[in-house]
Amino acid sequence: MSTAKKLKLGLVGGGPGSFIGAIHLNGALMDGMFELVCGAFSSNSAKSKQRGEELMLDPTRVYCSYDEMYEKESQLPEKDRMDVVAIVTPNNVHFDPTAKALKYGFHVALDKPLTLNYQQAKELYHIVKNSDKRFLLTHTYSGYPMIKQARQMVADGVIGKVRKVYVEYPQGWLYKLLETENNKQAEWRTDPARNGLAGCMGDIGTHAFHMAEYVTGEKVSHVCADLYIKIDGRPIDDDGVVLLRFENGASGVLMASQTDTGCENNLKIRVYGEKGGLEWEQELNNSLTVRFPNQPAQIFRAGTGYLGSLAQENTRTPAGHPEGYVEAFANLYRNFARCIYADRAGQKPKWEWEDYPGIEDGIRGMAFIDHVLRSTKSDIKWTPFIVEK
Amino acid sequence: MSTAKKLKLGLVGGGPGSFIGAIHLNGALMDGMFELVCGAFSSNSAKSKQRGEELMLDPTRVYCSYDEMYEKESQLPEKDRMDVVAIVTPNNVHFDPTAKALKYGFHVALDKPLTLNYQQAKELYHIVKNSDKRFLLTHTYSGYPMIKQARQMVADGVIGKVRKVYVEYPQGWLYKLLETENNKQAEWRTDPARNGLAGCMGDIGTHAFHMAEYVTGEKVSHVCADLYIKIDGRPIDDDGVVLLRFENGASGVLMASQTDTGCENNLKIRVYGEKGGLEWEQELNNSLTVRFPNQPAQIFRAGTGYLGSLAQENTRTPAGHPEGYVEAFANLYRNFARCIYADRAGQKPKWEWEDYPGIEDGIRGMAFIDHVLRSTKSDIKWTPFIVEK
Amino acid sequence: MSTAKKLKLGLVGGGPGSFIGAIHLNGALMDGMFELVCGAFSSNSAKSKQRGEELMLDPTRVYCSYDEMYEKESQLPEKDRMDVVAIVTPNNVHFDPTAKALKYGFHVALDKPLTLNYQQAKELYHIVKNSDKRFLLTHTYSGYPMIKQARQMVADGVIGKVRKVYVEYPQGWLYKLLETENNKQAEWRTDPARNGLAGCMGDIGTHAFHMAEYVTGEKVSHVCADLYIKIDGRPIDDDGVVLLRFENGASGVLMASQTDTGCENNLKIRVYGEKGGLEWEQELNNSLTVRFPNQPAQIFRAGTGYLGSLAQENTRTPAGHPEGYVEAFANLYRNFARCIYADRAGQKPKWEWEDYPGIEDGIRGMAFIDHVLRSTKSDIKWTPFIVEK
Amino acid sequence: MSTAKKLKLGLVGGGPGSFIGAIHLNGALMDGMFELVCGAFSSNSAKSKQRGEELMLDPTRVYCSYDEMYEKESQLPEKDRMDVVAIVTPNNVHFDPTAKALKYGFHVALDKPLTLNYQQAKELYHIVKNSDKRFLLTHTYSGYPMIKQARQMVADGVIGKVRKVYVEYPQGWLYKLLETENNKQAEWRTDPARNGLAGCMGDIGTHAFHMAEYVTGEKVSHVCADLYIKIDGRPIDDDGVVLLRFENGASGVLMASQTDTGCENNLKIRVYGEKGGLEWEQELNNSLTVRFPNQPAQIFRAGTGYLGSLAQENTRTPAGHPEGYVEAFANLYRNFARCIYADRAGQKPKWEWEDYPGIEDGIRGMAFIDHVLRSTKSDIKWTPFIVEK
Repeated sequence: MSTAKKLKLGLVGGGPGSFIGAIHLNGALMDGMFELVCGAFSSNSAKSKQRGEELMLDPTRVYCSYDEMYEKESQLPEKDRMDVVAIVTPNNVHFDPTAKALKYGFHVALDKPLTLNYQQAKELYHIVKNSDKRFLLTHTYSGYPMIKQARQMVADGVIGKVRKVYVEYPQGWLYKLLETENNKQAEWRTDPARNGLAGCMGDIGTHAFHMAEYVTGEKVSHVCADLYIKIDGRPIDDDGVVLLRFENGASGVLMASQTDTGCENNLKIRVYGEKGGLEWEQELNNSLTVRFPNQPAQIFRAGTGYLGSLAQENTRTPAGHPEGYVEAFANLYRNFARCIYADRAGQKPKWEWEDYPGIEDGIRGMAFIDHVLRSTKSDIKWTPFIVEK
Repeated sequence: MSTAKKLKLGLVGGGPGSFIGAIHLNGALMDGMFELVCGAFSSNSAKSKQRGEELMLDPTRVYCSYDEMYEKESQLPEKDRMDVVAIVTPNNVHFDPTAKALKYGFHVALDKPLTLNYQQAKELYHIVKNSDKRFLLTHTYSGYPMIKQARQMVADGVIGKVRKVYVEYPQGWLYKLLETENNKQAEWRTDPARNGLAGCMGDIGTHAFHMAEYVTGEKVSHVCADLYIKIDGRPIDDDGVVLLRFENGASGVLMASQTDTGCENNLKIRVYGEKGGLEWEQELNNSLTVRFPNQPAQIFRAGTGYLGSLAQENTRTPAGHPEGYVEAFANLYRNFARCIYADRAGQKPKWEWEDYPGIEDGIRGMAFIDHVLRSTKSDIKWTPFIVEK
Repeated sequence: MSTAKKLKLGLVGGGPGSFIGAIHLNGALMDGMFELVCGAFSSNSAKSKQRGEELMLDPTRVYCSYDEMYEKESQLPEKDRMDVVAIVTPNNVHFDPTAKALKYGFHVALDKPLTLNYQQAKELYHIVKNSDKRFLLTHTYSGYPMIKQARQMVADGVIGKVRKVYVEYPQGWLYKLLETENNKQAEWRTDPARNGLAGCMGDIGTHAFHMAEYVTGEKVSHVCADLYIKIDGRPIDDDGVVLLRFENGASGVLMASQTDTGCENNLKIRVYGEKGGLEWEQELNNSLTVRFPNQPAQIFRAGTGYLGSLAQENTRTPAGHPEGYVEAFANLYRNFARCIYADRAGQKPKWEWEDYPGIEDGIRGMAFIDHVLRSTKSDIKWTPFIVEK
Repeated sequence: MSTAKKLKLGLVGGGPGSFIGAIHLNGALMDGMFELVCGAFSSNSAKSKQRGEELMLDPTRVYCSYDEMYEKESQLPEKDRMDVVAIVTPNNVHFDPTAKALKYGFHVALDKPLTLNYQQAKELYHIVKNSDKRFLLTHTYSGYPMIKQARQMVADGVIGKVRKVYVEYPQGWLYKLLETENNKQAEWRTDPARNGLAGCMGDIGTHAFHMAEYVTGEKVSHVCADLYIKIDGRPIDDDGVVLLRFENGASGVLMASQTDTGCENNLKIRVYGEKGGLEWEQELNNSLTVRFPNQPAQIFRAGTGYLGSLAQENTRTPAGHPEGYVEAFANLYRNFARCIYADRAGQKPKWEWEDYPGIEDGIRGMAFIDHVLRSTKSDIKWTPFIVEK
């Protein structure tokens, strides 16, 4: 035991001005299971160097490309070299660094969506499945303890057979052509070459889709999509709705927008079954409302002793001490690390630890993008949802 | 002035066990502009008599049918006879008593939806248009002061051109086959012969549809509907979603359910425009959230001095003294009465008073039912929304 | 039964510009148990006449003084004359019209606080106790269904022995010297001659005090008061706090202010006992939060079937159809009327109907004012609370 | 720049089962400015060792006492040795390790309250003031971005002169004699020898007191305290209220309880001034409600661009991505680290960074404990609040 070491983390992307790179780091570092040892923060060497200095890294381990980083790190002694790479680049730089990292033998934590397009996703699917390294796809919201609780309650039959799912993800930040105002985030996320062909649906619709399947444990069987470009001059969708049907007969509605002017980031999911219902919203993430007919609604709270094991394994403060978005990230990273440690120790990880999003979630998310784009173009109401692998 | 008299109100329906009849009365009586003088509460004469006694009516003015009531009341001296009839019967008893009342020269307040079916609606449309009597269709939710405020703010361009409308109406009370358990409300509302062919969409979807058009001032141009029977054995829909397109290019999502287990009655509408957004939910009806980019959200409150004239004319308590559902009804009735008084005085009513739902709303609601039923059966995604009159 | 008549109501006060007079009327009329027949709305005869016309009263029953009204009404035949008088005047006009009304044999509904001062209260106490007429003191907030539920749950031992009471009543409308800006409400409420010597504590502190005792069923034994005049130039308190001790050993904090700038009217009460806790706030009045250790909080809702009989008797709409402030008033009036009808029928009213505030509440409220004024002047921490009658 | 190194952190306390030790670590590690290098986690060597292993420390730097740790660490080369010690022990082990750490030349982050008693506090005050090392007292709640915003808004005069402060801290976890049920947290926090003579008021009342002064920038001048032991058999207070007067004439109410059955940890502060009001509650920490007369309430949100510099420097995610309790801790540690780095670089830290709680807050907190204990015993209402140093 006393020989345990922190997992050595490298970063691909996350240069100056990046949003999600810094959050990945906050989440990975919080629990003391990772230490950042190296990074290829930007293809611009000055920027990569600058970020390395900000992060107080050894300058010799700050690289200008992931190719260089993988090559150099793999040559370091095992006790020093990177164990895990976190890839936090735009979507067009997901496939290649992931595929190569696995070949070099690094575990990979990749920001969503899986790849730039469905074709890449299908290819990466097999690469990941054939690798013996761990792969984490950071669908953040599945890291929240009360989402974990909801998932476990549905699985345990608490609300009965699921009949209905509402999931919505309203943002407003792209309510105007921010991409022409020197906003880096807006630029790449509205650029099909870097983001992929689905804008809002690719960026946040995939989160909503993941929530719907993750919480209910049910699989989508059909979609009816209606995507919009609300702002003239934008090349890809910034708003949309997708009607869902599930294999078990349930129906659903998925709404996502980046042009709901004034909205922040209130991902919300509601699930109703034969016996009861569950409601959660991200901006009030420490509560889960549970409803049964002819009874008072119950407000389940993070950090309490009455939660199931899945939530219990994904919290760190007692009730009334709010955890948030960074902790949701931290939960993904902590579970990922726990599994890597268990693997090394030759032990089976707890099922609660292995319940982090991975390649199966990733391929389904890319199939979702593909299907909603096709459905939007179609005059036929329903498009069967078939995941090719 | 000193000759002004309360408006004399008669009731059709609202017998023992009725829900909405009692609420109509609470609303009509609250402001002292109506007095109940007669009723045909039930076709069962004992029940009608019982209800008349409960309401402390003169027994000679308690009738067993609206035909009898109209006939007898019309023979009374003008100073005594009924001025206004409120019709609060199941949907299959809307057309006939309304048509006849107008012919007898009574003003009519009718519960929604307009009629049992679209055919009746088109016929009634012309009867109402050709009458010189006032006609109120009680789309309750349009009586809430903060809905009035939202309507006026949109009309005034506060949020800019409307781009998106979400309206949802989740109920859970029909989560099981309550209609087989001796529940009167469930019985008639799930019976196509008394309710019409659209269940949930007819009962509450029409409210949601009315909200969408009333708040935005925009008209629906296309629908894509997906209705469900969630409970085996029920003959008509108890859940559904309708995608909307509006004539101005806005899009919308309308969700209604009576099988969202555990839900009460939280009608909610959100409207987003080029400049800002508005959010309202019925269970917190005294607040209206107003959003603009990069500014704190503002919580507009009923009863405050900064509201527009439309809200001001539809409230009676100062801020922090909550008004509710009965007051929303009362607002409809008070505006209706104010218009009748103005008519009698040969004065033009304030526009704010005339802003109550009527026959145009009614025919559109029946067209909505007709189109969502047709769209649900169709494999084609979009059905143009064309109101026949 | 068929001879039942509506109770004939007369009003003292409530002239043009009155706030609470109109609310009393809304509440009294809503349920169809009262009809307004007469009024002495103002000592200014033009104003009284104007208000009578607005209310569509018979001009011969609009009076310029309650003396005249009582005298004339008492001479009318029983079937026509006023049964109940509602007194909605400033506090200096509470004692005399109440005392006289009872002597004339009218039932009295009186706005709170009971009288201008404690001396009057003690006198009125005996007049009311010695009268065979019904007396209602309109402590509005005790009419809310979820307050009724809280009271019943405490009485039933659901939260165990009460240990702690927090009650707060923050308003902000007197945040500046509004009484110098031609605001009628501010004028009389800050005038000791019309309002009494306790400003904020008399106006809303008495409501808070009533809530504390009404919900818990416990009696205050000691007070430690600290009243403030926050705005220079105001003669009486506009803010304050009172520490409470109860006879059962519980402690409490009562806060009331009319200078909490920006606040509306959010009376809030929280009660914690050995086994659990209850929380209610007026601006969200249809919910009652119930807490037990190591369990999810439960949100009890008005209009549901799981409530106790006391709440059930004080509601009129199903869950999710909000009732509000006017309905709280209506509940007081409906219970009052039900008791009068029961008395007339020689029947014992249901206990739930008789659970409206009356003279015992009134004398305690005036004792509260007296004690907090004395305690504020005292350097000694605790003042025993002893109600003289 | 490239020579910057992470600050090396050692821990005193935080052994197995500790709550706050783990949170300090999460907060300190999150932003990558600290690395844990050593610890004296427990005086029990097996426990200290176990915790060291869990934290993957070098076993040679896991100690059994802070004396040993300070001695050994001070002998390490500067590049390796501990820079900062975080002391997270019960209150009776605050004074000595802090005083010694400063003498050894380590910066100190100390959990609140400052010391076991006022006498120690006065002594430590001078030790800290005479040291050239940085001292952080972790009054967590002052690290929340919206508390920072509130403080800056008050300082900027946005709400005008402060008139009123309500601060409350209701917990319920000690609603029964948990200290007899083998609960470590309850054991030491109810033990005067380890906790000090004020129970609830020392543990969480001091947080509330700090909030009141920190947000308003005003100083308390008088207290009137009423502390309770609600559970028989407990030696120190578990509930209480303190009336406050401030030097500027404002008044306040401070409520704290650990026996409000069912409550979690919802510290709440409300401040009202001549022009407006501010309201914040910890369980919804990402929002700050701002009220002005006759205007809609405004909901300021963490992570937005319209916040002041003090909030901006204390956040890491954009609006709608909730930060929580751990981030509040992280903000304290990040500001502390930024100041240490600035000191080393010979630069003046930004004022926003230096705005972390320290020795002046600590001595006032201990004076608060002393005064409320004395006031509780006194029959005189007001006790002047005089801080001895």
